[in-house]
Amino acid sequence: MFEQLGLIGCGLMGGSFALALKRAGLVKRVVGYSKSPSTTERARQLGVIDVEAPSALLAVSGADIVLLAVPVAATEATLKAIRHLVTHKTLIMDVGSTKRDVVDAARRVLRDHVSSFVPCHPVTGKEVAGVEHADADLYSGKQLIVTPIDRTAPEKVQKAIELWEAIGCHVQRMTPEAHDAAFAAVSHLPHLIAFALMQSITSQRNGSDFLALAGPGFRDFTRIAASDPKMWRDILLANRQELVEQCNLFQRTLQALELMVETGNGDGLEEVIGKASEARAGWRMGPGRK
Amino acid sequence: MFEQLGLIGCGLMGGSFALALKRAGLVKRVVGYSKSPSTTERARQLGVIDVEAPSALLAVSGADIVLLAVPVAATEATLKAIRHLVTHKTLIMDVGSTKRDVVDAARRVLRDHVSSFVPCHPVTGKEVAGVEHADADLYSGKQLIVTPIDRTAPEKVQKAIELWEAIGCHVQRMTPEAHDAAFAAVSHLPHLIAFALMQSITSQRNGSDFLALAGPGFRDFTRIAASDPKMWRDILLANRQELVEQCNLFQRTLQALELMVETGNGDGLEEVIGKASEARAGWRMGPGRK
Repeated sequence: MFEQLGLIGCGLMGGSFALALKRAGLVKRVVGYSKSPSTTERARQLGVIDVEAPSALLAVSGADIVLLAVPVAATEATLKAIRHLVTHKTLIMDVGSTKRDVVDAARRVLRDHVSSFVPCHPVTGKEVAGVEHADADLYSGKQLIVTPIDRTAPEKVQKAIELWEAIGCHVQRMTPEAHDAAFAAVSHLPHLIAFALMQSITSQRNGSDFLALAGPGFRDFTRIAASDPKMWRDILLANRQELVEQCNLFQRTLQALELMVETGNGDGLEEVIGKASEARAGWRMGPGRK
Repeated sequence: MFEQLGLIGCGLMGGSFALALKRAGLVKRVVGYSKSPSTTERARQLGVIDVEAPSALLAVSGADIVLLAVPVAATEATLKAIRHLVTHKTLIMDVGSTKRDVVDAARRVLRDHVSSFVPCHPVTGKEVAGVEHADADLYSGKQLIVTPIDRTAPEKVQKAIELWEAIGCHVQRMTPEAHDAAFAAVSHLPHLIAFALMQSITSQRNGSDFLALAGPGFRDFTRIAASDPKMWRDILLANRQELVEQCNLFQRTLQALELMVETGNGDGLEEVIGKASEARAGWRMGPGRK
């Protein structure tokens, strides 16, 4: 049981965390801060937070647990704003989709108190953003990746794991590097591709005619292209090294397939499609599956 | 009202067409043929067809309407097998996902009787194949593209349009060329990309670990990668010219985006993602939408 959660960023992810903790009886009081005062106010009106803080620092004041639920590019500035109130007693966590940049920022800013920081990535979300969509069930049954570094205090990692498990997450531990490589492949690259496909189609003269004919396959394939531009700009830039590597691997594979199409290599094409189809048909989303 | 439907290919698409026509009271008798005798038998047992024909030619014998529901690559051989029984009274249609190759095959094989052939592409389908999944509602509310050529008899086109509309389709008329360009962009290229992404991930050393972490975005993005290998090999090859052109356009766009990521061009990235996101968020699937 925690006395006080300092929530920095009262959006979908942060708000849902506060609601889940409250429902599970794991926190007595939630003090929240968002960059936009109207968001903070709305979060209080909705009962997501109990007290509005006028600054990130004041949200942390008196908190034994702190969650940063801000865009990854805002992590460093947020840590700077709160570092004077972070002690070895505080448990700080984030919910960012990239982990190397977050860990680097935490090292730089928190210095000795980096031991209190447990980097986290809950593999969940919604199409829609904002505290209005906060949901106590958002984390339930989902994967949560923790990426502690050598300087992270083991008891803080343990505490974080217990907390996420208490609100229904399946926790997996990885290095920040392994995390970023994996999510470059299965999340960041698919987003980049979906954005590129939409751009490629809409920039053609007949693009809108083409789109008018698209069916359910296109609908599902491009769903992630509707994601928030600023958030995804930041994620793609934060993980640029791994993303570029995955993008190059993908392009080499696509070019090989394109060549098979161009030269009429039906056997080669069928072999690759067969493997891809088998791999995808056998895949199931969820914790502990391979 | 038709006397007899000759159905060649008693799978999901063909079977659903037979069921829809029967339910609408538009046909008295369905004579079916599939390459595999057990499929034809199963279609009769399920009441999808009334009579099993031992050959494609015999399925056409006595039919005033014929539907080819075979893989696009089998169109030419199928037309050759039935051409001796095709007259100027027959209405023949297909349901292939590509149209230029189908039209070319029809010209070559049917010669003067190409006037009886109305090339069709219903924009519908299911994840699962086979007559067991045939469904009288498969075409209901879906788009149907007809791509007549200058030699197609106008009264046959009219008859075909009325028939598809009677089973609930929204019919749109295009040239085979415009059809293939559009579907290269919104269907064939997304499939090629999805196959390439699965192949690119699974061929990496840590590929299965990566897949175990993938979430709902990946699930939807790669759904079409589970499609049938032979069917998609044929579609991709049949539309290779347009597909390669779309693939090259897409790769140039992706490379431009990748360069923005690599060089940290956040403004450029946000602009492209913003346009893509807006275009996708404003898009709705369905007839008559742009």
